[in-house]
Amino acid sequence: MLSAAMRTRLTVVLVGARNPSNIGAAARAMQDFGFSDLRFVNEYAVPFEAAQLESTKSAVGAADLMKNARAFASVADALVDCTLSVGTTAIGDRQLSRPVLPLAAGAQQIIQELARPNFRVALLFGSEKTGLTNDQLSHCQMLLNIPMFAPSGARHLSMNLGQAVAVCLYELGRDGFEDARDLPAVPDSRITAGARERLTQLLVNAMEATGYSRRFPANAREHVVRQLAIQLGTSEEEAATWMGFLRQVLRSAKKDAPG
Amino acid sequence: MLSAAMRTRLTVVLVGARNPSNIGAAARAMQDFGFSDLRFVNEYAVPFEAAQLESTKSAVGAADLMKNARAFASVADALVDCTLSVGTTAIGDRQLSRPVLPLAAGAQQIIQELARPNFRVALLFGSEKTGLTNDQLSHCQMLLNIPMFAPSGARHLSMNLGQAVAVCLYELGRDGFEDARDLPAVPDSRITAGARERLTQLLVNAMEATGYSRRFPANAREHVVRQLAIQLGTSEEEAATWMGFLRQVLRSAKKDAPG
Repeated sequence: MLSAAMRTRLTVVLVGARNPSNIGAAARAMQDFGFSDLRFVNEYAVPFEAAQLESTKSAVGAADLMKNARAFASVADALVDCTLSVGTTAIGDRQLSRPVLPLAAGAQQIIQELARPNFRVALLFGSEKTGLTNDQLSHCQMLLNIPMFAPSGARHLSMNLGQAVAVCLYELGRDGFEDARDLPAVPDSRITAGARERLTQLLVNAMEATGYSRRFPANAREHVVRQLAIQLGTSEEEAATWMGFLRQVLRSAKKDAPG
Repeated sequence: MLSAAMRTRLTVVLVGARNPSNIGAAARAMQDFGFSDLRFVNEYAVPFEAAQLESTKSAVGAADLMKNARAFASVADALVDCTLSVGTTAIGDRQLSRPVLPLAAGAQQIIQELARPNFRVALLFGSEKTGLTNDQLSHCQMLLNIPMFAPSGARHLSMNLGQAVAVCLYELGRDGFEDARDLPAVPDSRITAGARERLTQLLVNAMEATGYSRRFPANAREHVVRQLAIQLGTSEEEAATWMGFLRQVLRSAKKDAPG
């Protein structure tokens, strides 16, 4: 479970990202999962400023995050204060000399690292076109892969940058957030066995009153009807609606009944 | 673990999606995780055709999937052959009468459902602007929520549509794909204890030859050096590089040694 302090110790590094809407999407994903430290490594300055403009559109609520993002001239500069650098890779035709962890396993190690004060984890994503190069990956102590479906014969797998960032940060927050607001409580009104039995009896009576039991006696046996009633509403509100309807069926059937 | 047959039984339904690049991103995520049945529900026809054009750009390799996507006039029409309909919701200020499962728990139930032949699971995503409305959610037997970080006081959480689709499909494939190509094998060349000991002895010798041991005798004790050597390369290739370098240090130190 991620605490606020742990989340401040994660840095997302976009290396060579070029598409402003991808950068905005990455910032938005960070905002969604409560992370805030975004860094860029770009050889030329173009996309960074365009993305800041774009972020006001695409990165809903993430404009502040984009404003505080920092640009660096090299991967080494961007990672200088990080104690663990993690490179994401789709692998492709790359010859890797180190094992690659699937995201779920790698995230567990990252979370352990984030739990230690004074540690900082950098999570690196490569450019849309090439991913992280071997040179860029050589700065990383851990390599991560998002398991995708690779049909045999598939030459190249790659994921949209904004989606890859979202999937990785989702996995980090998958077990929940220590300081998050709880999900709004659902009215906790599961019906009692007693209420359910009244519902069952009402259904039996309605089947008799309408003549259904006479036409289909096998379906109207009490244990069959009880099974049917189990499917009906599980909350008090829904059960009350069913009971009201069945009473109306009874009333209506009696009115129609001859003399 | 998802098999090919299970993946064919999942349908992604985009309800009221308007942004062609989001639709393209959703198609691309489906492609990434091996799903293929995409359906749209739209009151007017505009975005569907634009998205088919857009998909050739944004949905890399997903153009076929977009071409086979089908448009429906209502949610009921789109779900007609599905045995379980699952609505995704950010909840927000919505008053929900049914409990909402966090994605990880809901995905387990979906996977069990996909395992049964003749079953079909629909996964519904709402429009970028409103998400699924209460009316649209009423078609669903299960509600799913992607856990996001909601600081106290936050009014509204929502996720980019393409990213939400990617995160949900990632979770479904998180335990792997039965029929996927294996990750390329990393050269399996962990070094033996014997090789590591030779490395340790070379390091001891290099420390002596260069005069390091005389200046820092505490650091040059054999058990300290052995701990240092454990950090050095874990693969045969890396260990070989270290040994070569240490031999060169020895050679160089002897050459410099007086007389």
